Amino acid sequence: MNRRVLLICLIVVTSAGSAAAADAGKQIVLQGGSNPGATACVTCHGVNGTGNAAAGFPRLAGLSASYLERQLEAFRLGTRTTAVMAPIAKALTGSESASVSEYYAHQHPPAPQTQAPPQQLAAGMRLAITGDWANGIPACVTCHGPAGQGIGGPYFPALAGQHASYTVSQIQAWKDGARTSDPINLMKSVAEALTQEQVEAVAAYFASLPALDKNTSAESVDALAELPPTHAEQTPADHSEGFIPPSEAEIPDNEFGRMVWLGKKVFVHTQQAASKYAGNALNCVNCHLDRGRLASSAPLWGAWPMYPAYRGKNDKVNTMTDRIQGCFTFSMNGSPPPGDSKVMTALLAYSYWLAQGAPTGVALPGSGYPDLPDPELAPSRERGRAVFEGNCALCHGAHGQGKKVDGAYWFPPLWGPDSYNWGAGMHRVNTAASFINANMPLGLGGELLTNQQAWDVAAYIDAHPRPQDPRYENSVEQTDERFHDHNCFYGESGGE
Amino acid sequence: MNRRVLLICLIVVTSAGSAAAADAGKQIVLQGGSNPGATACVTCHGVNGTGNAAAGFPRLAGLSASYLERQLEAFRLGTRTTAVMAPIAKALTGSESASVSEYYAHQHPPAPQTQAPPQQLAAGMRLAITGDWANGIPACVTCHGPAGQGIGGPYFPALAGQHASYTVSQIQAWKDGARTSDPINLMKSVAEALTQEQVEAVAAYFASLPALDKNTSAESVDALAELPPTHAEQTPADHSEGFIPPSEAEIPDNEFGRMVWLGKKVFVHTQQAASKYAGNALNCVNCHLDRGRLASSAPLWGAWPMYPAYRGKNDKVNTMTDRIQGCFTFSMNGSPPPGDSKVMTALLAYSYWLAQGAPTGVALPGSGYPDLPDPELAPSRERGRAVFEGNCALCHGAHGQGKKVDGAYWFPPLWGPDSYNWGAGMHRVNTAASFINANMPLGLGGELLTNQQAWDVAAYIDAHPRPQDPRYENSVEQTDERFHDHNCFYGESGGE
Repeated sequence: MNRRVLLICLIVVTSAGSAAAADAGKQIVLQGGSNPGATACVTCHGVNGTGNAAAGFPRLAGLSASYLERQLEAFRLGTRTTAVMAPIAKALTGSESASVSEYYAHQHPPAPQTQAPPQQLAAGMRLAITGDWANGIPACVTCHGPAGQGIGGPYFPALAGQHASYTVSQIQAWKDGARTSDPINLMKSVAEALTQEQVEAVAAYFASLPALDKNTSAESVDALAELPPTHAEQTPADHSEGFIPPSEAEIPDNEFGRMVWLGKKVFVHTQQAASKYAGNALNCVNCHLDRGRLASSAPLWGAWPMYPAYRGKNDKVNTMTDRIQGCFTFSMNGSPPPGDSKVMTALLAYSYWLAQGAPTGVALPGSGYPDLPDPELAPSRERGRAVFEGNCALCHGAHGQGKKVDGAYWFPPLWGPDSYNWGAGMHRVNTAASFINANMPLGLGGELLTNQQAWDVAAYIDAHPRPQDPRYENSVEQTDERFHDHNCFYGESGGE
Repeated sequence: MNRRVLLICLIVVTSAGSAAAADAGKQIVLQGGSNPGATACVTCHGVNGTGNAAAGFPRLAGLSASYLERQLEAFRLGTRTTAVMAPIAKALTGSESASVSEYYAHQHPPAPQTQAPPQQLAAGMRLAITGDWANGIPACVTCHGPAGQGIGGPYFPALAGQHASYTVSQIQAWKDGARTSDPINLMKSVAEALTQEQVEAVAAYFASLPALDKNTSAESVDALAELPPTHAEQTPADHSEGFIPPSEAEIPDNEFGRMVWLGKKVFVHTQQAASKYAGNALNCVNCHLDRGRLASSAPLWGAWPMYPAYRGKNDKVNTMTDRIQGCFTFSMNGSPPPGDSKVMTALLAYSYWLAQGAPTGVALPGSGYPDLPDPELAPSRERGRAVFEGNCALCHGAHGQGKKVDGAYWFPPLWGPDSYNWGAGMHRVNTAASFINANMPLGLGGELLTNQQAWDVAAYIDAHPRPQDPRYENSVEQTDERFHDHNCFYGESGGE
């Protein structure tokens, strides 16, 4: 057999295996498992996994099998504590757990029904899509996928179409410690930051969304771009005395305002809205969190008032246009949008808009990435690997390759051909360490990792191969000598 | 004879006439005039017109003959009152006045000698070259020519090389009313605004300059560009609560600072520093007085914080780069500097620098040109002509053609092939009226002309022919309909 035939056979076998498992699963759903106490799932979750909103039983239909299986494991381990599910999960055998998970994963989720008031839904949508960075809350969709449809795999389940009552109860469980199965305490941290009003709003919003099956990225991107402004938007600032950019509700409804919205779209959905200039899989927002609003994450309102400025990197006075073009050349490994292109005008308009009221030429607190003290120990790639595997791989993949949903990157790759190149600022270990320390893991910046860990993991990440420096001349050695007189691994790894 | 030979003959005849007059003049200088009381000039002014610094007798050598003749006339008329000169001037016949003036105009001015302290000279230079707009004082050189060498003709004499004692006494005479021969009270107004310290400094500075003969524009331009910063520079603001741009002394001594200086050079000496983009005889500073610093004169610090912005003129969101390119296309009747050109970067850097501290997106008082109330009477070109001849022709020429020094424009032309074109903002009567009302005559903005006069003279100026609108399409009628739906004479005059 040649390789293609082998591949097809494998797919057929795998599908057949899943189907068989699902059949076995159905039997358990209807009649229970082989051990005493493994009662039929249908009682609470329904034969099609629709659950029961009034009783707070979750919808299981269409959730990923590995996620469902991991939950059964959590009930067994006690990292999820419920009087009902713990004994059932313990009574199910390993293969029964797998079968029943596979079965429910294959059920078609029902159309959502909601009677939540529009104002609550709008508040929930805002939280889901943009977060509440002033209180350290990242957007839910960052981890739960476009339109809340989940990322696939054992973590980050779909929230779309889930009963609001269940979502509310689970957020409470994270808060109370009744559920501790979240990796690196991500959900506990978020749950503790949410107000009860926010919890109910975001649960209502996700309950109102259809649990989409496939190819929804484009749709959800459109939805994001059309997100209506809210009136209570706060600036991202754990730096509470810092600069407050204007709320999107203040963007005027005119030609200028439409250019600002386009700029935001390009900034957040660079892959879709500026595809011809993007040479990798990143979006501007990957390095400039919260739509370029977040303090200590190189916010646009911090950059706009500081240009034109001289930069040693290209040894000239750079306009803001030059600076943005630099981002596209290096961080985006692409080609710079021309100065008179609509994409550039839009990015300038969006940057300018975010800086409304900021004094020209004044470096605001929270600009750029904060200085990070030198580490006590020289950064170690080996220690960094452990930090990465324990904290970063969850989203960025075991090999730094990021994660895709429906074929498109959702979590950004940190190295390899789809990441920033050897000319980007982020390839400098000190820059990456500073960004990581202030902002990673998402929502836990400065809380989870020590300074030393930030340095170590930055070294680990930045030592990996990535696209060549576009200023490459003749050889890695020569390019290294000319352009890489800073804290980086270019000379060592730039030729890979 | 063909026309060229005729021209040469005319020149020879004219030169011979001047030489003959100068010979006659020398006799009067040495021996006095034909009437009693017309004593020999040599006594006070010397045979070579060097004057006498200690006694306060002015240097006459090299001043223009028409200026000298006009002074003798002023002594006769009593618009200059001195016990010594009045009877002498009255005793000289008309032809003797002309001869003696011609004679002294042909003498070579001596090299200057000065012992003024450097600090005083620096203060004088600043005043001479940039004025003191916070107190309504324009730069002396604006009227007295590059490096104070005079404009030629009966007004605006050379100040370079004049004895300081004499200059001081004359400024006092303007103040006291002992000298009232200044057109439209220009010098009285300036003299009253000057402090005694400023008077002494500027007199000392001009005394220290050589009275240059010819072709000095290039040199003087270089001198202007290299003007060292002072530490006490104030913002132009009769709007005393207005925004204060930083002093040039604060421009840092680094790459960025050098780009700011270049931007200032381009802005003030556009003809020299950005010649390839200038299609007429104007400089940016002609519409943006005091180096782009003056409130109500479209200061750069007012414009910078307001872009990107939508403009109806080109129906798109304009970046600051677009906006500046518009100036070159229309007001400069040239070609726009590319967005990535050094000229553009320099102008952006200079604009940005002037706006240091200005809040992004906030319209500052003094931005643009101030709104001017509608006139009581419809603007009249005929009334405007009288206003022009009485107030504007002095500098801008009887035919709006501006005035040259050593072959290069010093006073800007207001119409004709070397002025702004039919697409420039200034061709709108309301815009010109607003500019004129706020700023013209120079240093007397809002003081000399009534609102009605500003409207009238704006109509007079803007009805004259000028370079075609670069957006011209097919016919004046079609271009008028498409682009000139505003207060202007394009349809009437645009085809001229």
